Amino acid sequence: MSNSTSKSIENNYDALELITEEVLKRYGDTPNPRLRELMLSLIKHIHGFAKEVKLTAEEWAFTMSFLEETGKWCSPGRNEFMIFSDALGLSMLTITQDYPRPAHATEPTLVGPFLMEDAPQFPMGANISGGAAGTPMHAQGQVLDIHGKPVANAVIDVWHSDDRGLYDVQDDFEEKGAWARAALTTGADGRYSFWSVLPVDYPVPQDGTAIQMLKATTGRSWRPAHLHFRIQAPGQRPLVTHIFDKNSKNLDGDAVFGVRPSLIADFVHQAPGKAPDGQTMTRDFYTLDYNFVMTDPIK
Amino acid sequence: MSNSTSKSIENNYDALELITEEVLKRYGDTPNPRLRELMLSLIKHIHGFAKEVKLTAEEWAFTMSFLEETGKWCSPGRNEFMIFSDALGLSMLTITQDYPRPAHATEPTLVGPFLMEDAPQFPMGANISGGAAGTPMHAQGQVLDIHGKPVANAVIDVWHSDDRGLYDVQDDFEEKGAWARAALTTGADGRYSFWSVLPVDYPVPQDGTAIQMLKATTGRSWRPAHLHFRIQAPGQRPLVTHIFDKNSKNLDGDAVFGVRPSLIADFVHQAPGKAPDGQTMTRDFYTLDYNFVMTDPIK
Repeated sequence: MSNSTSKSIENNYDALELITEEVLKRYGDTPNPRLRELMLSLIKHIHGFAKEVKLTAEEWAFTMSFLEETGKWCSPGRNEFMIFSDALGLSMLTITQDYPRPAHATEPTLVGPFLMEDAPQFPMGANISGGAAGTPMHAQGQVLDIHGKPVANAVIDVWHSDDRGLYDVQDDFEEKGAWARAALTTGADGRYSFWSVLPVDYPVPQDGTAIQMLKATTGRSWRPAHLHFRIQAPGQRPLVTHIFDKNSKNLDGDAVFGVRPSLIADFVHQAPGKAPDGQTMTRDFYTLDYNFVMTDPIK
Repeated sequence: MSNSTSKSIENNYDALELITEEVLKRYGDTPNPRLRELMLSLIKHIHGFAKEVKLTAEEWAFTMSFLEETGKWCSPGRNEFMIFSDALGLSMLTITQDYPRPAHATEPTLVGPFLMEDAPQFPMGANISGGAAGTPMHAQGQVLDIHGKPVANAVIDVWHSDDRGLYDVQDDFEEKGAWARAALTTGADGRYSFWSVLPVDYPVPQDGTAIQMLKATTGRSWRPAHLHFRIQAPGQRPLVTHIFDKNSKNLDGDAVFGVRPSLIADFVHQAPGKAPDGQTMTRDFYTLDYNFVMTDPIK
């Protein structure tokens, strides 16, 4: 555009400020104070973003289609929006900021998109693999409170990938149902144990929209091998975390920024022989020992 | 929490900054410069929002479910995410900032969630109502370029509500198909005209998630009566706008901030008698005259 044309063009910057002011004023009417605080901050930041980058109508239209497309990838056991939240660091930021804890309590990490409520219940020591392919793995440990006392009646949800790097919900879930997914309840000793298969490194789901973003941006779409845990117990704040395999090659580049050094553990390779539960194994297997330390609810 | 407890709690604020830094560093690898700019600004603002309001894990989880639920309300002809963008003022902000124009060019406004590509084509002067209920309305005018010359071969998409305040896509679309929706192409004189029914004020769709947000926040969910237009012509920047009815009671509180004074027009009430196209009407009707002034594409 020539300078002379520019002079005759309204750049609409005054109007832009008026739009933001009008929107903020309107949402200032929100009756609930917390919701009002959230909305006003959200609007300031969304408008701030659009102005800072001078978002174009074309980019806006792409974003609207992309959000709609993202919705189509959601299904029971998979929330594609969560993968975006995870991949943009929002999940880890929220969890870190909202989980004040003594230094020796277990660190939380993100829940990820594949948690399901009402997982199959198993007795302690059971094999929860449900036929999932992979090298056998025995996991055990104790759920402790912040004072080191065992936590009874803790419900432990555990879920993880098979040796293809897939979860049950990415498989033929309607046909096969849940596998490598369980709810276990601790007794008075707070102890847990189960058999399953060793999880492996895997990429963010390859068929959704989040992977499209990652491929076009960071190029990092892999997650280090891990077990997911959610532990809920009376009088304790729920703990959602992972245990990562220290032998993973992707500990430094987790696509979703979930790794914390304190959550990296040794999945120990074992030759055929006696397992921790007394069983004799005829093939190689892995063992894991990990204790969880819960925190009291914030008063 | 007592002060003594507070001292033993990691508040994780250092970790928070580390998370944001790590995420920004990772997305700094984005190869495309514009996408990199967009992502870095988006991340700064999303993180800034979450930190400013101290977003909780519970609020985050609600948001994730709410986004998933929003996806379920999308269908051909309805993008629920657009309603959020509209209701948060993002749409108007983007359009205003990305549509520099001489002061006498027609102002753009938001596209709204109900645009469909491949609308039924009608000849000029046709009745496009498709049986929609309402008072007859005749609309006419001219599509002009910035120098006042008629624009030939302009494709005008027009779509609007019936007298219930509903669009065809909110009705039984599979059964009834499109109504009050058309594509018209101008001839050498740039003129357009059509018959339809008078649009009325209506609220944002009552069955989705956007209305839930509006009810909990601004309490303003109504839109003033309007016709939607999209005009595409060779050598001109596409124009997406509305014409608002000056008799609407909701011009001051449009749920989606779309009203611009220059887009308010007189839908003139007419007693039975001769219509602008020479036809004799046996019942009351309305007439509208409105010219559109396009802008050249930005060079």
